[in-house]
Order: sequence, then structure tokens, then C-alpha cells
Amino acid sequence: MCTDAPALVEAICSLAVRGAPVLGIAGAYGVALAAARGFDVAEAARALEGARPTAVNLSVGVRRAEAAHAAALAKSGDPEAAAAAALVAARTLHREDAEASARMAAHGLALLDELVSGGGHRILTHCNTGSLVSGGEGTAFAVALQAHRAGRLRRLWVDETRPLLQGARLTAYEAARSGMAYTLLTDNAAGSLFAAGEVDAVLIGADRIAADGSVANKVGSYPLAVLARYHHVPFIVVAPVTTIDPDTPDGASIEVEQRPGFEVTEITAPQVPVTGAGGGIPVAPLGAQAYNPAFDVTPPELVTAIVTEGGAVSPVTAEALAELCARSRQVTIS
Amino acid sequence: MCTDAPALVEAICSLAVRGAPVLGIAGAYGVALAAARGFDVAEAARALEGARPTAVNLSVGVRRAEAAHAAALAKSGDPEAAAAAALVAARTLHREDAEASARMAAHGLALLDELVSGGGHRILTHCNTGSLVSGGEGTAFAVALQAHRAGRLRRLWVDETRPLLQGARLTAYEAARSGMAYTLLTDNAAGSLFAAGEVDAVLIGADRIAADGSVANKVGSYPLAVLARYHHVPFIVVAPVTTIDPDTPDGASIEVEQRPGFEVTEITAPQVPVTGAGGGIPVAPLGAQAYNPAFDVTPPELVTAIVTEGGAVSPVTAEALAELCARSRQVTIS
Repeated sequence: MCTDAPALVEAICSLAVRGAPVLGIAGAYGVALAAARGFDVAEAARALEGARPTAVNLSVGVRRAEAAHAAALAKSGDPEAAAAAALVAARTLHREDAEASARMAAHGLALLDELVSGGGHRILTHCNTGSLVSGGEGTAFAVALQAHRAGRLRRLWVDETRPLLQGARLTAYEAARSGMAYTLLTDNAAGSLFAAGEVDAVLIGADRIAADGSVANKVGSYPLAVLARYHHVPFIVVAPVTTIDPDTPDGASIEVEQRPGFEVTEITAPQVPVTGAGGGIPVAPLGAQAYNPAFDVTPPELVTAIVTEGGAVSPVTAEALAELCARSRQVTIS
Repeated sequence: MCTDAPALVEAICSLAVRGAPVLGIAGAYGVALAAARGFDVAEAARALEGARPTAVNLSVGVRRAEAAHAAALAKSGDPEAAAAAALVAARTLHREDAEASARMAAHGLALLDELVSGGGHRILTHCNTGSLVSGGEGTAFAVALQAHRAGRLRRLWVDETRPLLQGARLTAYEAARSGMAYTLLTDNAAGSLFAAGEVDAVLIGADRIAADGSVANKVGSYPLAVLARYHHVPFIVVAPVTTIDPDTPDGASIEVEQRPGFEVTEITAPQVPVTGAGGGIPVAPLGAQAYNPAFDVTPPELVTAIVTEGGAVSPVTAEALAELCARSRQVTIS
């Protein structure tokens, strides 16, 4: 439980709180919390925004609550009223995210039905994009769940998602709980599945989408995009409109977070005593250096479609994304 | 230590003894052992051959010792002389494998120097192909080692190789011991490296090469081949001629071993007490089903070259491979 903003920053850095949409919600509540407890709101906002550099939703959520706080403070001059306004903003974002999930799920399933013919969808997914990362049922996972409920999910292929195994630990759990037909695999086994014609579509989330349609998502997404292209399988990104960042022009401008090597050289398991420097069980020689980017970037030409709560964009172009963002802003304002 | 053939079969099944070339050597010694201890040689040979279906070298080694045994028995009628002949055959195979390693390393480095321009090679490798799998210094790893000794290895990128982490546990160890500049990565992080232009060549081993040049190797090899093609990076397979199986016409004819799901759903670490059904630490929900093929198959059109002790074949065609095999047989007979 996080009772102040610094504790929340720590929870975000250590990935106890993770997943793009929920980071935005957490960031907004973090600002509300700082305001309610009388901390410096701007300072807390900067610390929260900086906790993870790649997920744009975190920054969007933080700034929305911060703006509500500032507006209320300017209007009333009352810190308590301003804190209350920040909390209202956080709760609104939370509710909107749940509604966005439901709309993404509907749009995503409609697109799948259009792109994939035959008796039910065999969907490959990566990382964790369900209700554990969302105010609602998630992004990519919500689409698979919608397909399952409609009786049109033949199989959910779940990438284990090294190094932190969010697929094995979280997505498999959510799939099992929902009664979906699912199978876990090591990330590197996806190639055989594509080669055997066992994948109808890849569905993933996103941490940041640049203005040109480049998609930053959990490391391992880009190899799936290349495999999907090679095998003529649709590669679909499901994310709320807030994930699209007009201030990031292209893939090269996306800052990709590099995480500590011990996430690769050690296996963390809560069940076992700590033995390695990173708190896990060493699986590599002492002193082994590891390359551990948290995300990779998929260029727009490999993305079949981006599905948002405001509809799907396909083909993915800067113009189509800009139009979608403009339309969504109108809806929010009206 | 294996003091009889059944113990060796168990060691091969559990991967205590693993890696294509060393499986052949182990198989030959297994036959010699069975003969020396008075077991039924044919029965032991079939059990050894059947221990793992994909690596053709195992079968080649077993049959070579078995043939030597049968020939000596037919000639002398003396079981002891036949057992001695099987042992000589195993020792010869062992010595030949070491010599083959050295020749593969030389041919491989010459090819790298030809294909890759500039100051030193940045090589990506998968699984473990060094002295732990060979009578000599290995296959793909031996080439990287040769480059290192020649001062032309800029970096060895080591895929951790899920599920059993042979890259993290074994290749990283061999690279560290040899003083190579190496970096470990999760298999799914290779995509970012290719995208960043950090990979000059992929070097892998092989468990079986079909007559058409299709390559069965550790699962995760095929996705690397697709990434390499997409990024115009050479994809080079290094394996002794015995890995080429003229009796397997194509990739579809290669039997790919499916291994137990617990290798994926549990993490095995010798340091920690057993908690899961498979003897490891559970990292997925109880009852999670896993897809766990030990190998995948890369079609010849994605393989830039196959490097053997008899030279390199590029482009990879059925005719070129058949010619290489014929040439190698002549050398062996002469």
C-alpha cells in the first residue's frame, strides 16, 4: 500500500505498479495524494513522471491531475478544494479508462472478425495487458476476452515475456481465471507457431505511440512484428488514445528505459531465499554483463492496425493518427 | 558418472549430456560401454539412438561404434575384441570431432572476414555450442573464439536461450573463461540489437540438417533467421558434416522433440529446494499448459551459409550439400 507519493514512485520503479493505462491512473492518484497530504504538488508530479520514462500514459495522468489541482487552486485559493479537484480528476481518468477498455475490446474484435476468416481466432499476445494494468479489462487482453465471451477465441498463445515473466505470472493467471483456452510458451518459441500456421493475429498493448505510428512496447514486441510480417499475419496494437504522443515525432525519439542487468542474470522468485546481488537466484556467471532494454520500438510499416477507444487506424499513418487524436479531443471537450 | 548404457540414456534424456557433436561421441562410447560390460549391443544401441529424436549426430555415433563392433565380431568371433573395436571407433570419433572443430573455426572465421567489413565482428549466438558440446572447441562458438584469438571479435551477444538457459549458464561461462567481450540478453531482446545495427552476423549450431539444407536447431533459431533476413545480416550455421542427414529430405521430415511443459512453467535452480511438480520453482498458474518444442526448423532460403569441417556451402542448396557430403566420405575412406 502506498500512503505517500515517494512510496508510489518506488512502486512504479520496481514494477509493483506497471502497465501503461494503470500507470496513468496511478500517476493521477499520486498527485491527488500529494495534494491531500500537503506535499509540494509540482515536485511530486515531476518525481512521478520521471519514475518510468517510456510509458507516456504516466505523464498524461500526472499532468491531468496536476492541471485540475492548479486550476482549482487559482480559482478558489483553497488547498483543500484543489486537492479535492485533483482526486476528482484521478477518479474521472479511472472511470474513463474502464470505458475505453470496453470500447477497445469491441473495436478490436470487429477488426479481428474482418481480418481473420474461419472458425475462431488464434491470438498470440506478449506481456500483460488485462485488468491488472487497467481501470477496466485492459487493452489487447480485453479484445481476446471479448472474443472468448463471443465464442470466437480458439486459442490464446501467451508469451512468457522475459525477463520478468509478466506473461507466465500475470496473463496466464488472467486467462485461466477467465476460462480461456490458452497455452504458455517461451518468447523464442513463437517462431515455430508462425511457421506452423498456428497464429491468426498478434495483439499487443503499447507504452508510447509516436506521431508517425512507431510503437514502443515491452521488449520482444518488435521480433513478433517482423515474424508476423514474414508470415503475412496481422500485427495489431491496442491502446487508449492517450498512448499516442504527438510530441514524440518518431520511433528514434522514443526514450527506451534500460533496466538493471540482474533482471536477466538472476531469477526472482518470492518463494526462495535471496542469494544474488539483485535479490534473486543467479543463472549466469558472476559479473556477467546484460543488455536489458525494457521496451523495443516497432515501426509503423510493420503495424497492421492501431485499435483505440475512438476506433481503429489502418493503415497506420501520421495523418490518420493526428485525425484520430483531434476527433478524441473533440469528444473529451464536448 | 554413467557406468552403464541405461544411465547414459537417462543422462541424455535429462540433458545432462547435450549438444549435437558430443551426443554422437557419447552415443559411440555408450555402445562401447555396453559391449565391454557384456550387454546386448543392438538393444543398447537402439535405446541410445532413441534417447533424443532430433540430433542426428547421436544416431551417427551410435551406428559407427555398433558397425565397428559387428565387423570385429564377425571377423574374430571374440566378444572382447569386438568391444575393443567399438571403443577404438568411439575414440576415433572423439578425436575426429576435435579436429573438425578446429577446421570449422578456421573456415568460419574466413567466411566472417569475407562477409563482414570493418573493425571486428559483433556476433549473435544462441544456445551453447562450445567445448561443453564437442570433443574440441565446438561449432559456432569455436568460430567466435577463433575471431577473439585473432583480435577480430568486437562483441559476442549471448542469447540466454529459454527455457533451459544454456546461453546464460553455459555460453556466458565459456565466453567469460576465454576472456571474450560478451553481453547476455533475453532471447526477445535480439530484435532491438538488429534494429540498432549492432549485429554483424548470427552464428548458430545445428542438431540436424536435412538434405535440402533445412536446419533444425535449438528453439529460437528460426526467429533469429527471420530477423537476420529482415535486417540483411548473414545467418551462418556451423556444424560437422555428420549433422547433414541425407535420409531426411526436407524440413517437414525432421521430427522435432516436444519436451515437458514444466521446463517453461517452472524455473529449475540447483540452489533452491524443489517446490513444483517438475522439480523447480513455479512461475505460472498451477495447471498451465505449455508449448515447449526443443527445436525449430529454419528453411535453407534463410541460411546464408553452412560451415563444416569440409568447407562452407553458400548458397545452401541440396546439390551443394550432396557434393560436400560425397567429398567428405571420400576423405574418410581414403
